[in-house]
Amino acid sequence: MKPADLLDHAENDPALAQADFEAQETSLRTDLLLQQFALLEKADRAVLFVIAGVDGAGKGSAIHLLNEWLDPRHVRTLAFGKPTPEEAARPAAWRYWRGLPARGRIGVVFGSWYTPILREAARRKPDAERLEAALGAARQFEAQLRADGVHVVKLWFHLSRDAQRARCERLAADPETAWRVSDEDRQVASRFGRLRKAAEHVIAHTHEPAAPWRVIPSADDNLRAVVTATTVLQALRHPLPAPARAPKPEAQGAPRHRLVVAGREPGMGKRDYHEALAEAQARLGRAVRLPEAAKRSLVIVFEGVDAAGKGGAVRRVVRSLDVRRYDIIPIAAPNEEERAYPYLWRFWRHAPTPGRAVIFDRSWYGRVLVERVERFAAPADWQRAYEEINAFEAQWKDHGAIVVKFWLEISREEQLTRFRAREQTPFKHFKITPEDWRNRGKHKAYRAAALDMLALTDTPHAPWHVVATDDKRAARVQVLTTLADAVEAALGESG
Amino acid sequence: MKPADLLDHAENDPALAQADFEAQETSLRTDLLLQQFALLEKADRAVLFVIAGVDGAGKGSAIHLLNEWLDPRHVRTLAFGKPTPEEAARPAAWRYWRGLPARGRIGVVFGSWYTPILREAARRKPDAERLEAALGAARQFEAQLRADGVHVVKLWFHLSRDAQRARCERLAADPETAWRVSDEDRQVASRFGRLRKAAEHVIAHTHEPAAPWRVIPSADDNLRAVVTATTVLQALRHPLPAPARAPKPEAQGAPRHRLVVAGREPGMGKRDYHEALAEAQARLGRAVRLPEAAKRSLVIVFEGVDAAGKGGAVRRVVRSLDVRRYDIIPIAAPNEEERAYPYLWRFWRHAPTPGRAVIFDRSWYGRVLVERVERFAAPADWQRAYEEINAFEAQWKDHGAIVVKFWLEISREEQLTRFRAREQTPFKHFKITPEDWRNRGKHKAYRAAALDMLALTDTPHAPWHVVATDDKRAARVQVLTTLADAVEAALGESG
Repeated sequence: MKPADLLDHAENDPALAQADFEAQETSLRTDLLLQQFALLEKADRAVLFVIAGVDGAGKGSAIHLLNEWLDPRHVRTLAFGKPTPEEAARPAAWRYWRGLPARGRIGVVFGSWYTPILREAARRKPDAERLEAALGAARQFEAQLRADGVHVVKLWFHLSRDAQRARCERLAADPETAWRVSDEDRQVASRFGRLRKAAEHVIAHTHEPAAPWRVIPSADDNLRAVVTATTVLQALRHPLPAPARAPKPEAQGAPRHRLVVAGREPGMGKRDYHEALAEAQARLGRAVRLPEAAKRSLVIVFEGVDAAGKGGAVRRVVRSLDVRRYDIIPIAAPNEEERAYPYLWRFWRHAPTPGRAVIFDRSWYGRVLVERVERFAAPADWQRAYEEINAFEAQWKDHGAIVVKFWLEISREEQLTRFRAREQTPFKHFKITPEDWRNRGKHKAYRAAALDMLALTDTPHAPWHVVATDDKRAARVQVLTTLADAVEAALGESG
Repeated sequence: MKPADLLDHAENDPALAQADFEAQETSLRTDLLLQQFALLEKADRAVLFVIAGVDGAGKGSAIHLLNEWLDPRHVRTLAFGKPTPEEAARPAAWRYWRGLPARGRIGVVFGSWYTPILREAARRKPDAERLEAALGAARQFEAQLRADGVHVVKLWFHLSRDAQRARCERLAADPETAWRVSDEDRQVASRFGRLRKAAEHVIAHTHEPAAPWRVIPSADDNLRAVVTATTVLQALRHPLPAPARAPKPEAQGAPRHRLVVAGREPGMGKRDYHEALAEAQARLGRAVRLPEAAKRSLVIVFEGVDAAGKGGAVRRVVRSLDVRRYDIIPIAAPNEEERAYPYLWRFWRHAPTPGRAVIFDRSWYGRVLVERVERFAAPADWQRAYEEINAFEAQWKDHGAIVVKFWLEISREEQLTRFRAREQTPFKHFKITPEDWRNRGKHKAYRAAALDMLALTDTPHAPWHVVATDDKRAARVQVLTTLADAVEAALGESG
């Protein structure tokens, strides 16, 4: 059935007799618990229910029902309203990422990413372009979640205009339930036509096999309860189909970056180095202390093969920053908790807040580097990651982040020299492990992965900078200068 | 040396010649890196440096130095100022707990729990009682951290009044460093005598072998750097001694709670049950929706042996709450990440915020129940936990939490009946595992642990309520009624 027909059907306000309800209740509840615990035990996916619909249709009652019929200890109910101060300080999607259920668990979202979309769609004259973009972003987000083990099922609670009004009046008349009727609920009737049209549009454009909408007729308490429970049960029983696999991404145009290392000679002299470094550090230091910088954040990503000089670069960068205003996040293999969530989840935990810098020593690019090369991620998974990462960085940028990414490139010869030196220097030998030698052996595969990454994730909002690091000094100066340029340019635009 | 002598020594403003500094720099840096990586590899403890001292003494420079001489990727610098909105919404200590370094890592705290203490101590007429309480709380907190694997070393940066003034003037004169001089720095000279006296008092009362203060003479950049580095090095090399072991706690007076279960008969009738439950739920529902409740939080703890009815009670409780305003936290064995922190850390993550309820299905009491009985915690560790837990709950209460704790008590016979029923009911058999039977066999040990817990953690600010659950219906009504009473009483006091 088409969305319009489903909504029409709900507006007929079908009902279920009490006897019929009672006949189904016990078996529905038993089945729900059984399926919930099967999910918990298997823990191969999470299930997230998005609760939406006309105000006053009984969404709250449905959530209560789920918490009563399921074991509420393994259900996470997330109700989002106006952003709290901690939510407002981070990119808009942060709160949804933070609230995702872990594999094995159930999440119920109330006040989801559909709230602003529906608000736009229900305006007298919706901004078509903006709406289209928001709908696309929702589709992309849900497809990404499904591909990464979070199955999203969306419930639209619907009823006729008259039934909505009658239900609100009934609740408002009883002092025990009057608090449940909000101003929004009361205003629905006068805007019913527009709300219905908005719902139809939004559902039609975001109903995907991998993240479907289910319309729940809501006028009758019994029917609403049974259809809600049945819908949830079906979602627990049957995993959703995987989203259509995107075509293998291919770079557009000529690559902007090449991995050629000029070699060490002649190299930067010590005096020139100290002078140039101090100047770049001072420039960066001044830029991050400008008043405009207080509203922005700085996200610095360092990637590169072992011994390319990431640690040394980080140390020179932080020298310019206020030690109270940065975090360094070293990224290694995900831990037990992190593995229970989509791969970007753990990076969202470190979403930047205004006035602060976050420096990633390795990053989400592990997905398309080590996870690709070592086959920790299936080809379909790392191939979709390029687009997901671009969208992810755009969301941070849209919230004011200045995103600067460095690929530190080193020649094979220089890497060998540094590996050997590390083995022989007492306070450096901890830096060299058998794994480093193993990775060195897979040089070609890592190189191919790096080239794809540079070609496919070099965006205007989060550009890559390739820095040749055989000459450590020149490399550090280049990193600092690049950062100072980027921050100055970004603040210049916003100022 | 006594604190007064150490501060006197620092006010002599000793210095270190450049040549002497250079002679030590390389070996200090090498040793720091070596020790840092030994710590990271062993990961048997965390080390937390508290940075304090006179404003304008170079604390910021010292932190920069640590971040430059150590590998900053494994140092977490925490700078706390005026509480942010997300900090203000939680008990005061939340931000310190949240920022603790994991085992193997180093933390540097700037703007620590000493900031308010020093502010009080430096007033013209400090409130002696308040000051004494705050000093005691700091000692208790640090001893607890040490016992739980976080070694706290406190650095006091000090110099003479003249040197302080001279240093500020020097920094203010250079446009590159002028931003580092704050209004507080400029005001130090006029209040120097009082600040010095406050420091002496605070250091004298919080200098413990298990959490020592080190005074760093700070007038000379070279000497400050070397003494800071040496102090840090020593802390990385030598674990601190364990705090003095508190005497084994003993209950005062006659126990308020007894674990006697009246048995099932005659039992509450179905009709009486529904009526009484509905009434209690309505009462609780009204109480949590009172305007005064928006500033408070509700913390509900359920403990009890397997099959005592925790899940059923939780379900009846949440029925009264707004589904958007509660979280249910089921507690199981700590995961990999949680094990790297003191045992209370994972509960601090769920610190309640105003207007919300947090329901713990099992809790921090696992420390003195399962961890004691199964010997996961050493006797000294679970014995000190009673006092730590009382302090912890008091901190939550002080921030407006209404803490209500339930021990659900069931007879041996009824437990056996329920275990057998679970094995035979399709949607309940997942609830019964071999471990449940094993725990049942350790009945006496669990009972002794529960009695100690009830005697030692039944406080006015977080009382225990023992509920006999052989009669499930009566038990649920009692839980709801107790909660309604507790919330009404708490709001009545505050209103």
